[in-house]
Formats: sequence, C-alpha cells, structure tokens
Amino acid sequence: MSKVRLYLEHSLRVGQSVSLTREQAHYLFGVMRLGAGDDLHVFDGRNGEFRAEITQTGKRGGEIACVERTRPLQMPPDLWLLFAPIKKARTDFIVEKAAEMGAARICPVQTEFTNSERIRRDRLQAHAVEAAEQCGGTFVPEVAELTRLDRVLADWPESRRLMFCDEALVGAREALVGEAGPWAILIGPEGGFSEAERTRLHAMPQALAVSLGPRILRADTAAVAALSLWQSTLGDW
Amino acid sequence: MSKVRLYLEHSLRVGQSVSLTREQAHYLFGVMRLGAGDDLHVFDGRNGEFRAEITQTGKRGGEIACVERTRPLQMPPDLWLLFAPIKKARTDFIVEKAAEMGAARICPVQTEFTNSERIRRDRLQAHAVEAAEQCGGTFVPEVAELTRLDRVLADWPESRRLMFCDEALVGAREALVGEAGPWAILIGPEGGFSEAERTRLHAMPQALAVSLGPRILRADTAAVAALSLWQSTLGDW
Repeated sequence: MSKVRLYLEHSLRVGQSVSLTREQAHYLFGVMRLGAGDDLHVFDGRNGEFRAEITQTGKRGGEIACVERTRPLQMPPDLWLLFAPIKKARTDFIVEKAAEMGAARICPVQTEFTNSERIRRDRLQAHAVEAAEQCGGTFVPEVAELTRLDRVLADWPESRRLMFCDEALVGAREALVGEAGPWAILIGPEGGFSEAERTRLHAMPQALAVSLGPRILRADTAAVAALSLWQSTLGDW
Repeated sequence: MSKVRLYLEHSLRVGQSVSLTREQAHYLFGVMRLGAGDDLHVFDGRNGEFRAEITQTGKRGGEIACVERTRPLQMPPDLWLLFAPIKKARTDFIVEKAAEMGAARICPVQTEFTNSERIRRDRLQAHAVEAAEQCGGTFVPEVAELTRLDRVLADWPESRRLMFCDEALVGAREALVGEAGPWAILIGPEGGFSEAERTRLHAMPQALAVSLGPRILRADTAAVAALSLWQSTLGDW
C-alpha cells in the first residue's frame, strides 16, 4: 500500500496522464524513492482521489497515469478562517492546522494592531497543500490575499455568520448549538482588536462573540481551539 | 502597567523578597530592560500572582520584593494530557498548548509505535513555565518523565476517565456531556496505536474512544482539538 499522496493542479480523471514538475519529480523519485510502475495517490481538489501509476521517471520531470478513482471529493463544511498574521512560524502553523481541521477558505486579515504588512501567499498556499496531502483530505482550501479587516467587514455576506473571540461571557459551544449555515471564524492579533474594530464587530448582526476560557490563548492556539469547537458543534466531526 | 510575568520556584507571600537567578536577571534587566523600582508580576504556581518591585539589579542576579497579591491561585480542571512524543518542534508545541489550554498534568508516554526513546524533561518543563507566564495563568502543569504506556495503564486510577482518539463513530462532544470527574486525554503516536494497545484501551472501563472528524489529524493538532472539546464540554471554558 502506497502512503504517498500528491496534490496535482491538473484536473484528473481515470486514464488521465499528467506530467510532473521538477519539484514533484524530486519528491517522488529522490525523496520517496519511487520508480516506474510504483503506485501513489493523487488528488486535484475537485475530482476526488485517484490511484496513479508512475509511467516515466526523470531528474527534471516524469509522468503519472490515473488508474482508478479511490475516493470522491469530500468538501469541508462552509467555514472560513480569518486571522491576523503573526510571526512566520505561527502563521505557517495556523494555515497548516486550518487545512487539517477542514476550513474551506483561509483569509489573512490586517487589523489595526496587526504587525505584519505582507505575507508570502504562495508559501502559505503550499503549506495548505502539504497539510491536505498529509491529512488524507481531497480538498485544498484557498489561502486568500492579505486584506484589511475593515474592507472584509464592509463587504461581508449577509448570510454568513461570523464567530469572533472576545472577552465575552458566553461559552462558544452553547452559543453555536443549532446555528447551522455558512460561518467564518475571526481570530484577532496578539494585541487584541482595537476599540473601533470591537465596536464594529459587536454591531454586525452576523457576528457572535464567544469566549475561549479564562486563560489568554496565543493566536495559533485560539485558531485550533475555535475550529475544534465549531467542527464538533456544527461541522463534520 | 507592567506586562512582564515571571514564574518563581520560591514560595511567595506579600513582603517576601526573592533572589533572582542569572537567567532571570538577564531576562528582566537585559531583555525586558527593567530597572530598580520597576514593577512586574510574579507567580509560584501555589499562592497566586503578586505585584513585585525590583529592589536590586545586577548582571548575575538581583532581588525582587512581593508588594501585593493581585490574583489568587486558579487551578485548572483535573485533566491530564498523555501523548506520545514526536519530532522536537511538535513535542514542544504540544507541551506549550497543553499548559495554555489548562491541562493539570502533562505525561509523555512511550507506545509501541513511538519513535522517541527519551525526552528532555527539563526543557519541556521550561516550555510549560513559559506558556504559563505568557497566558496569564497562575498554575504550571508538571511535565512527567517519559513512561511506557503499558505501565501507565497498569497503574491507572480507578476513578479517572480516559478519553482516547480512535476511529470510533461517536463524536467526542456527545460522548463527554455530563461525564464530570477527573479525566485524562491520550493522544497516540503518528503511527497509531498497536493492536494490543487498542484492545487494552477498549477493555478499560474508564476509557472512552472518540472521533476527531473525517480527516487524519497530526498528533499536535489532535492534542489541541481534544483539549478544546474537553474544556468546552466539561472544563472551565
């Protein structure tokens, strides 16, 4: 049984052959030591997972052919994660965890107290791909461009609820029960939201302020904790 | 308002003076740039949190005096986290998150498929201390020595429930509701439990197998997810 799973941007179907990039060839042949005739699993984030066979190997490329479909596409629930980017390692971590825990879309937002002015979107997207490869998922959440929170809120979809973490008294779980539909989770920066942001959030009819306990959680911990609560109450756990 | 929080091993009370170690002096005077007369918060994990004043500074030490008690000791719920150590960075992460999320005791266990044969207990304990300093906690969970899982289970307290993550069908939240009392969470290694371990766990009357959703979570993600579920259902969130 092959344990190698590879995400391919190319749209897949049974019988489809796909050329490998130099990086993919290096990973399969150099790192994982696979050769012609060996099996692996591939997925494209749209058509499910396929068992594929290596048909050509090379130092700078190669080719695989999809033999059979092993799993259908399994979409995560309609949940977005919005977060204020922090130090590099912790930002990478949030993206990895969001993909693993089944967020449908990952949106870095710039709040008034966010330090980070730019992100490497391509690098974060690569982390999401790697997490999907690792966790057995067939879907890869898109990492959006860094956007100012006030702009995100100005265009906020009327039907999408927004859970944000504040020093509210209500526990997250009680507040979520029975509230199905599209959702987003917003994790503030380490410095907290500004007064203007807090006022605006509390005024939104879609918004729900929840508490994540008596200890102050780091932003990366809060992201995983909030995703767990949502998934176990309204999601696919 | 001082934001510096320091854990001190010395038992604290109002009026108490405490000598600083070389590392503590370096942190307060070198890194945080505090000087004589400046305020900080200190806690000892037993008597709560105190506002303290720096009374002596030096390159190799110094002294602080506790002025007033600012918060009582707040114990976390009686929850242990057992986990199989993995790669260094992810093990550090699990300990940090367990302390942040309010585990009362952190127990690294060696399962049949655990790769790690030893841990640096002192380094992990230092991570728990740092997390407590950071998250505003007044308690520091003890990191136990690495112990074989079969020995831990052989001595398992009759009254302590044990939640472990398996490919069971029941969702974690539903299974936990109403089950108050002392608990532990067991997170298996990346390679999963062995058949013998799984059989033994399922046979224990204290054990509860739960699912953490349809995607395969890394051990560090599973630890945070399981802690969130427990805290939000039975804990102090």
